[in-house]
Amino acid sequence: MPTSVETVNLADARRIIAAAEKKAAEIGQPMNIAVADAGGNLVAHVRMDGAWIGSVDISIKKAFTSRAFDIATKDLAPHSQSGSQFFGIHASNDGKIMIFAGGIPLKKGDKVIGSIGVSGGSGDQDHAVAEAGAAAL
Amino acid sequence: MPTSVETVNLADARRIIAAAEKKAAEIGQPMNIAVADAGGNLVAHVRMDGAWIGSVDISIKKAFTSRAFDIATKDLAPHSQSGSQFFGIHASNDGKIMIFAGGIPLKKGDKVIGSIGVSGGSGDQDHAVAEAGAAAL
Amino acid sequence: MPTSVETVNLADARRIIAAAEKKAAEIGQPMNIAVADAGGNLVAHVRMDGAWIGSVDISIKKAFTSRAFDIATKDLAPHSQSGSQFFGIHASNDGKIMIFAGGIPLKKGDKVIGSIGVSGGSGDQDHAVAEAGAAAL
Amino acid sequence: MPTSVETVNLADARRIIAAAEKKAAEIGQPMNIAVADAGGNLVAHVRMDGAWIGSVDISIKKAFTSRAFDIATKDLAPHSQSGSQFFGIHASNDGKIMIFAGGIPLKKGDKVIGSIGVSGGSGDQDHAVAEAGAAAL
Repeated sequence: MPTSVETVNLADARRIIAAAEKKAAEIGQPMNIAVADAGGNLVAHVRMDGAWIGSVDISIKKAFTSRAFDIATKDLAPHSQSGSQFFGIHASNDGKIMIFAGGIPLKKGDKVIGSIGVSGGSGDQDHAVAEAGAAAL
Repeated sequence: MPTSVETVNLADARRIIAAAEKKAAEIGQPMNIAVADAGGNLVAHVRMDGAWIGSVDISIKKAFTSRAFDIATKDLAPHSQSGSQFFGIHASNDGKIMIFAGGIPLKKGDKVIGSIGVSGGSGDQDHAVAEAGAAAL
Repeated sequence: MPTSVETVNLADARRIIAAAEKKAAEIGQPMNIAVADAGGNLVAHVRMDGAWIGSVDISIKKAFTSRAFDIATKDLAPHSQSGSQFFGIHASNDGKIMIFAGGIPLKKGDKVIGSIGVSGGSGDQDHAVAEAGAAAL
Repeated sequence: MPTSVETVNLADARRIIAAAEKKAAEIGQPMNIAVADAGGNLVAHVRMDGAWIGSVDISIKKAFTSRAFDIATKDLAPHSQSGSQFFGIHASNDGKIMIFAGGIPLKKGDKVIGSIGVSGGSGDQDHAVAEAGAAAL
């Protein structure tokens, strides 16, 4: 008997991205913003004008990571440093795991139904923009 | 407003794999059998005793492929040969696309809720075993 | 003295994607649509609800390919089949080259300033949707 | 004269996985559980409902790693941190080496005949579930 799950769709992703862009504009730092669905697959991505081209990949992978482990990447980070319990996790999943701030699971109640990944500034900036996006779910 | 989707779970995967194993035993060809969920992520895999070790990867990737494009890999095959409309698709998705028989989408009505991938014999054998598995959904 | 180049920006990409989505909706086939800039780097991507998850990667790579070689992928295809002059090109660029229809350079005059990549249906459908997007530049 | 080796088979793998699942259920943390044979090749994998999708890959790689070096991954970990004698080992074997707790060799006497890899919780949880599985050999 199959299981029924909820997932973000494209309309959700656009609303989330718009909120994240607004926050990025407020702090004056152009960002890459990506949203993945409940299966960890990309739904939408935007690179704001002037945002780093190296952050295209990172934003998409932060979104994947937050759904892959149902955790904000900033909370995964301390466990993933040398000497910590998950050190080496960044080498798993064919290099798709990002272990620094900017990825956040999107939740409905206690269920993760997708994720957002942001890259383009400092870790704090990325996380703040991701939070602004997540709040629009 | 998030979307609700259905997906196979572990109990489904085990029932599907058991049916596929039974068929493989009947035809006397040990197989690798993998089941993926609606997000294309692996739910379960078994390698029957004596089955090819090179087919571990292939069975998992056939399952991914059938969900990735909602198509049996044997039906993707003719479109993916040199001179056909999708030639080159095997180089996409970081090498996770298999374009020969043995992968089948798992459907509930017209919705794809997962997939099965089988590898270990001829294309016809792999497909027949996958069909036996899919019938147990 | 550095050179000035023109490139699509995020506003362009969104207009192009909106036109492509409209066409995809008309033909009743949900699509993945990606736009790259003059540097070949992703500007924006959307996966329409119900579009294949295996086409996320393909749409992005078709966009890259069309800018990488300033050619529609359907025109690259015949040269890339077994026996043709560019056979093997799909294995270059770390696997980022897609050699089937759905990618189109975005031109201003005779200058390529970006590209669109579409994946989710037949080759003809993908190309038609890409053309509709490109026309919105 | 070739050598005879002992190895876990599919029946063993299932018994081991069942014991691991039972332990995971007891501690209330859904897990990915993988068993590899004496050749380091995957025999079987299950993802319990609700377990992390990013742990599919990690469980399989922990199993590989434990057979690859005949060591529990938690015992490989201290040698693999920055500054330690095996630092960098996680980049070997095409990325298949996991250097944190959850992988255990399966032994008959002093011979390693396979391995188990578990991922889905903290390092301590993963290791405890792997031990429960290994005890069922």
